Amino acid sequence: MKFMHCVSKTILHQQRCKVHMSSLYRPVIVAPPPSPKTASEKTKKGVRKDEQDSLSKSLRLLIDNGVIGPSSCVGAYHLLPFGLKAMEKLTKLVDNHMIMANCQKIQMPVLTSSSLWKATGRLEKCKPELMRVVDRHSKEFLLSPTHEEAICDLIKNPPLSHKQLPQRLYQITEKFRDEARPRFGLLRGRQFLMKDLYTFDTDLEAAKQTYDEINQVYSKLLSSLDLQWMQAHGSTGTIGGLNSHEFHVMSEIGEDSILQCSSCNEVFNADLSEDQQEDQLEATGSGSVSQASTTSDPKCINCGSTALSSSKCIEVAHSFLLGTKYTKPLSALYITEENKKVPMEMGCFGLGVSRLLAASVEVKSTMDEIRWPLRIAPYLVSIVPPKQGSKEDVLGTPLAVQMYESLKKILPNDVIYDDRTNQTIGKRLKDCKKLGIPYVIVCGQSVQDPLGPLMEVHDVNAGISSLDHSDKIAKQLYDINSSIKRLT
Amino acid sequence: MKFMHCVSKTILHQQRCKVHMSSLYRPVIVAPPPSPKTASEKTKKGVRKDEQDSLSKSLRLLIDNGVIGPSSCVGAYHLLPFGLKAMEKLTKLVDNHMIMANCQKIQMPVLTSSSLWKATGRLEKCKPELMRVVDRHSKEFLLSPTHEEAICDLIKNPPLSHKQLPQRLYQITEKFRDEARPRFGLLRGRQFLMKDLYTFDTDLEAAKQTYDEINQVYSKLLSSLDLQWMQAHGSTGTIGGLNSHEFHVMSEIGEDSILQCSSCNEVFNADLSEDQQEDQLEATGSGSVSQASTTSDPKCINCGSTALSSSKCIEVAHSFLLGTKYTKPLSALYITEENKKVPMEMGCFGLGVSRLLAASVEVKSTMDEIRWPLRIAPYLVSIVPPKQGSKEDVLGTPLAVQMYESLKKILPNDVIYDDRTNQTIGKRLKDCKKLGIPYVIVCGQSVQDPLGPLMEVHDVNAGISSLDHSDKIAKQLYDINSSIKRLT
Repeated sequence: MKFMHCVSKTILHQQRCKVHMSSLYRPVIVAPPPSPKTASEKTKKGVRKDEQDSLSKSLRLLIDNGVIGPSSCVGAYHLLPFGLKAMEKLTKLVDNHMIMANCQKIQMPVLTSSSLWKATGRLEKCKPELMRVVDRHSKEFLLSPTHEEAICDLIKNPPLSHKQLPQRLYQITEKFRDEARPRFGLLRGRQFLMKDLYTFDTDLEAAKQTYDEINQVYSKLLSSLDLQWMQAHGSTGTIGGLNSHEFHVMSEIGEDSILQCSSCNEVFNADLSEDQQEDQLEATGSGSVSQASTTSDPKCINCGSTALSSSKCIEVAHSFLLGTKYTKPLSALYITEENKKVPMEMGCFGLGVSRLLAASVEVKSTMDEIRWPLRIAPYLVSIVPPKQGSKEDVLGTPLAVQMYESLKKILPNDVIYDDRTNQTIGKRLKDCKKLGIPYVIVCGQSVQDPLGPLMEVHDVNAGISSLDHSDKIAKQLYDINSSIKRLT
Repeated sequence: MKFMHCVSKTILHQQRCKVHMSSLYRPVIVAPPPSPKTASEKTKKGVRKDEQDSLSKSLRLLIDNGVIGPSSCVGAYHLLPFGLKAMEKLTKLVDNHMIMANCQKIQMPVLTSSSLWKATGRLEKCKPELMRVVDRHSKEFLLSPTHEEAICDLIKNPPLSHKQLPQRLYQITEKFRDEARPRFGLLRGRQFLMKDLYTFDTDLEAAKQTYDEINQVYSKLLSSLDLQWMQAHGSTGTIGGLNSHEFHVMSEIGEDSILQCSSCNEVFNADLSEDQQEDQLEATGSGSVSQASTTSDPKCINCGSTALSSSKCIEVAHSFLLGTKYTKPLSALYITEENKKVPMEMGCFGLGVSRLLAASVEVKSTMDEIRWPLRIAPYLVSIVPPKQGSKEDVLGTPLAVQMYESLKKILPNDVIYDDRTNQTIGKRLKDCKKLGIPYVIVCGQSVQDPLGPLMEVHDVNAGISSLDHSDKIAKQLYDINSSIKRLT
């Protein structure tokens, strides 16, 4: 026992900052059994419908591979080393897109006073989904699910001059919602990571321009993850406002349905079509709402056509042109050129960061192996040295270490060394593929090639492998990394 | 009004990612009046003692300069762009030190089930300071102030093999405590950012080695911030365990007192000396506790000497050698070589990240100007171009932009361009100094020097300025930045 500890200390002192697979990747440790897969198999006979429903491919893969872990709070997950790494990469990517849109990053507290939500009328409206805390002085706070009230409270005092507008403030923070039925892991959790941007403009025309601009940024962001996505007219729901667009990743597991009109190409959430029909029916008095939605076909919200194609999808972002819905009741005013005080025109733009991560895994993975968008894979490359004591050990291990050192220079934070050398190469290669590390470099038998040492490079996403010299492999990975960065 | 918006859009498209002072630094917008300074002046006559007490130099400076802002929840603060930037730098610095100590980063949920805290007996013990939430199914959770219970719950299943130990898992997340009297801003808040590391070893000897090693890492971390700090024996308090050390930043505003023995050089928290005396008095039955602490001089906990010197200080980190205090009741067991299951030996190591940031500002700042440790200043350099329409404008502005572009290459994320060109150079230089940006480059009159354009470089911490050519200034700043990085 003491020996193990000493080994660890020696490694620490000799190889500071070296990222080892063994110390980062250990699903055996971090994924508590029974795994959801086993659980679902076990309970197929007598399982309750809602328990079966809470599983998804992404949740099963992420837990089985030790990327995330369930916690003592249903609907909230431990981010384990690989999961946190991917989340930090996605966060950085979102940051970059926000900076490009001239947004400034801030961070608002988790708790918001209930009194602010009372002022906008949302306290009652959202009651069942709000998690609430009472402090020792009997004051009530919300674990904020969103921050429209908080940002208005921040920005209102003192009133801005028209010269200081527009303002674009965003944060990437943990949000909370007491979901009736949390499911599919990070896809519908009670704690989730959200990017929320709030914009303030002088007039509606300017606010509309901001709205269009941010929606374009969202389009770029989703495209950079190489996902199949759609932008659709959405319902303004409890957030409210004048206009709303949703961004969806196409997936059969999604809880939303998107309709596309083959007459006018309008794309919209199926909810909207239902709402419209209900409105019409109510106006004409021709029947009750529940009858209506079962009897008539959905119609296009733009041209009224019924030639609609439907797709299931996961909502990952939602933009709202809010107008003065929040700035008016909370007196978030600005001073005009004529020295009058009027409410600012507001927009809000939410992006579910943890949900987008899970949606990416959901749509890209195979049934048995995780696949990540290249940009957010926890590591781009892993290096698998020979098994300890094998024929290749003497020649291959120094080559693997050398490869690690060279790659670390060109891919800082993106290369990991799989030092679980008590396991076979085959077992470790399989693990790397299951984890979805895009490139795996194996130092196996070919390091003994009579014409000079060769290594195997596995392009996991393409499902192909090749043999090459170490300098050529390094050059190849450098080029791949550069092209990824160019696209970001 | 429309014009303003168009200008912003033009800037956006022409200068993507350019970090402008105007779009990041606007205390007028983000610091709500009345500022604490004004508030304290106003209320000097009739103010309650506790309100006056809640102010500190760091809180006043951070709010007045728009670095942080008060929120709807007393004891929780908005991190505004400069504040968040500094916090992110400090977080990165802590990450680097943890990685050097072979620790792995994870993230646990904010909410922990009360049942886990019941099992360890802490639910009752810590009751007044716990913030609690009940979900829609009447289950109770805590807004975790610390995660000993949660990490044991994570790591216990399935039991680790002795081959998989030691384990070192840390996170940097928001924590919550319902402070009776939150004060001094980030120094004693109800929401705060904490780094908490949990270590698991096979036996006590190994756990002690881990404990010593992490304490050394803390020493290095605090020294890298160039702070006056001390390590002291501390009380194990509600966290408990076998041994505990605190790390303190020396400051008169601190709530702790550290005693140093001039006989044996032992350093310890004054609380410990009091506890010891209480224990002795209780054992001998020689008087009540309250009398004891007022009547006798404190004694060294090591040699019993009364030759002690006392210093006020702010606790910024606390290490605990916990033994099996948590692993036993929560059955966090590992499998020994002999195939027995025994509790792991645990350590925990907290570091108040937001408190350390505020403590740094508290001890380094002047009464009127923020001073940061170089490593965590929001930006290392700001560039102040000429006033719009001034004599120097034509010649100086292109030079300022050029300087910004060159510096951005060598100091990515560390240079800001002060484009509030409707204000005088003097006003903007003053702001930069108040914000504590260590180096300010001014393109003023000297750009018209007959022997070639010169710029002013202000070394704000040293309080000196000099004139030089732009290439020499860039070289100088490159060297400064390199030396900072070497020391990290």
